[in-house]
Amino acid sequence: MIKSEMENKIKNRILKCFFKTACLMVTLCLSSFFILSSCSGSLPQDGERNAFGLVIHGGAGVRTREEMTPELEKAYREELEKSLLAGYELLANGGSSVDAVEAAIRVMEDSPLFNAGKGAAFTREGKNELDASIMNGKTLRAGGLGAVRGVKNPISLARMVMEKSPHVLLVDQGALAFAKEMGMEIMPDDYFFTERQWNSLQRRLKEDIPYGGQLPPEPEDSLGSDEATDAGLFETVGAVALDKQGNLAAGTSTGGRVKKRPGRVGDSPIIGASTYANNRTCAVSTTGLGEKHMVLLTSKEISSLIDHKGITLEVAVKDVVLNQLVKIGGEGGAISIDKQGNMAWAFTTNGMYRGYINQDGKAVVKIYDDE
Amino acid sequence: MIKSEMENKIKNRILKCFFKTACLMVTLCLSSFFILSSCSGSLPQDGERNAFGLVIHGGAGVRTREEMTPELEKAYREELEKSLLAGYELLANGGSSVDAVEAAIRVMEDSPLFNAGKGAAFTREGKNELDASIMNGKTLRAGGLGAVRGVKNPISLARMVMEKSPHVLLVDQGALAFAKEMGMEIMPDDYFFTERQWNSLQRRLKEDIPYGGQLPPEPEDSLGSDEATDAGLFETVGAVALDKQGNLAAGTSTGGRVKKRPGRVGDSPIIGASTYANNRTCAVSTTGLGEKHMVLLTSKEISSLIDHKGITLEVAVKDVVLNQLVKIGGEGGAISIDKQGNMAWAFTTNGMYRGYINQDGKAVVKIYDDE
Repeated sequence: MIKSEMENKIKNRILKCFFKTACLMVTLCLSSFFILSSCSGSLPQDGERNAFGLVIHGGAGVRTREEMTPELEKAYREELEKSLLAGYELLANGGSSVDAVEAAIRVMEDSPLFNAGKGAAFTREGKNELDASIMNGKTLRAGGLGAVRGVKNPISLARMVMEKSPHVLLVDQGALAFAKEMGMEIMPDDYFFTERQWNSLQRRLKEDIPYGGQLPPEPEDSLGSDEATDAGLFETVGAVALDKQGNLAAGTSTGGRVKKRPGRVGDSPIIGASTYANNRTCAVSTTGLGEKHMVLLTSKEISSLIDHKGITLEVAVKDVVLNQLVKIGGEGGAISIDKQGNMAWAFTTNGMYRGYINQDGKAVVKIYDDE
Repeated sequence: MIKSEMENKIKNRILKCFFKTACLMVTLCLSSFFILSSCSGSLPQDGERNAFGLVIHGGAGVRTREEMTPELEKAYREELEKSLLAGYELLANGGSSVDAVEAAIRVMEDSPLFNAGKGAAFTREGKNELDASIMNGKTLRAGGLGAVRGVKNPISLARMVMEKSPHVLLVDQGALAFAKEMGMEIMPDDYFFTERQWNSLQRRLKEDIPYGGQLPPEPEDSLGSDEATDAGLFETVGAVALDKQGNLAAGTSTGGRVKKRPGRVGDSPIIGASTYANNRTCAVSTTGLGEKHMVLLTSKEISSLIDHKGITLEVAVKDVVLNQLVKIGGEGGAISIDKQGNMAWAFTTNGMYRGYINQDGKAVVKIYDDE
């Protein structure tokens, strides 16, 4: 009888313990649900593994519907689709994720619509200085360039740094010299000229917001939502891909922030800030306030959360972008894909030029946060 | 009776479950013990909180005892002690961790013994291009510079970028222009000349190991232990500090790898690769093969492990340096301090110029791995 009572006591304690654990889990699930339900722009998850896939962005922070003309909206959607199809063709034919990322980004670099390559933002001195990087998730090799001028396709130069040099990052004249040695296409200054970027610089030069070393630093929160839609702030481009062989890759390319100081390098060429790919976890590319991604290490943090905590890609992306990035005053977004082909994105802005494609071959393109 | 049997069964199952868990934990503890017992260079942990503290390194990979003269060894130990005392004086008087990190690194930059500032390595074209960064763990602001020439104290320029510009990273001519605007001390080329670095370059120029873009990339494992002791490879300097106010900071400064391509930027100016500080976790500075730290994000990974898994600083540092870095073919080391004043370091090389000091004011300096 005494033994049986003890057994009952033990049983009761264990049941209580199970009940408490269950309560805690329900609370956690509910909290997660409320956190996630306030997120914008999640990708549909069908639970099936994608044989291969590609996600792209053309920058967080889009024109409002009032500012957008039907012609311009059409042009953006067409370019994003073109970029997705360029990557898709390679992936469908057994090409590598690195090939697909490079091809998708080249399309956007060649378009005057995005702040990368041809449509790059101007420095305060009226020049175009380009940043880009690429990473191979299988080999963990990476390449990038910062503050380089004249290179038509910075993403291809980044790939050259990764594959043909022992370095990860080359800058300025040294990067240009390397580009010439590699036979990369070099363009004159006027190739990079776009009226909207030039006008964006002129407006900012007239403004009182200081943005240079001799002047006091710009307040950290001065890039509010009004300015996010201005050309050249956030229209960085990026791509992440999973190929048929199960390998991941990521890449990012940008002209950087309009009116930046010459020699400023943002997050786009920094592995772990903007671009990160690791077959064990995921591939990520970011867009937004570069200096915040650089101290948060946004793309590496997404990968680490998956690695250390075993959470899903979607939960990791949303935590880092909508919680951690916002907490430190950052703005922007991220796209991602994991080794199972799950795709996820998140952004803090009124929209993000973005799209995805998988083995179905159907390019899905979105701009606004309510799409 | 049936009820009692069921209770017994439940009890047995639970006991089995507890037993399995206990076995697993014992296995994990034993594995950890064996992993840790193979580590070199752990700091004594007395379990007491340090009121403040400073840890420095002058690079992983030291001269062997056969190569080291008594005079040279004395000179290294004296410079390391001088660096520690410079930081200590500030910390003891209530100065900030950022002040202490800057002061400690300036001492090593001004010494011809280390590959930073005055004793910087040469590029393949015989120039000195400097990299550095600093991070404030309280504000999460950071500053860095890459491939800049002529700046006497790159760590102070990094601090200017952090505090007087809205940027995190400036490179090359743009960084030099900013240094001049800030009134930083600029030195002529011959200030940076040291015979041992010049000779190191000449030896390497005569070698067949290619180290440039036009040539095939250097094999990833070509920097073996023989070369690690050569001047200019690993003698990056760094410091991490905790001040009386409980704030952390980290900084790193280097001339980079000898015979590097002009415009090559290594890990030292990259936040999360070499330098990282966050009051929530720890402050870290690394040394070694920069390109490996850049893809591992060594300093951020140490912080993330503490953040995500709640492990101690020492376990995190050893896992990242002795396990993760080695797995990807990296070499080098890291120093660190956490918000409780715990200090930890680890390195894969035959030694690391290093030292620490706390509120006791006693500078402890070490060179070899068996010290």
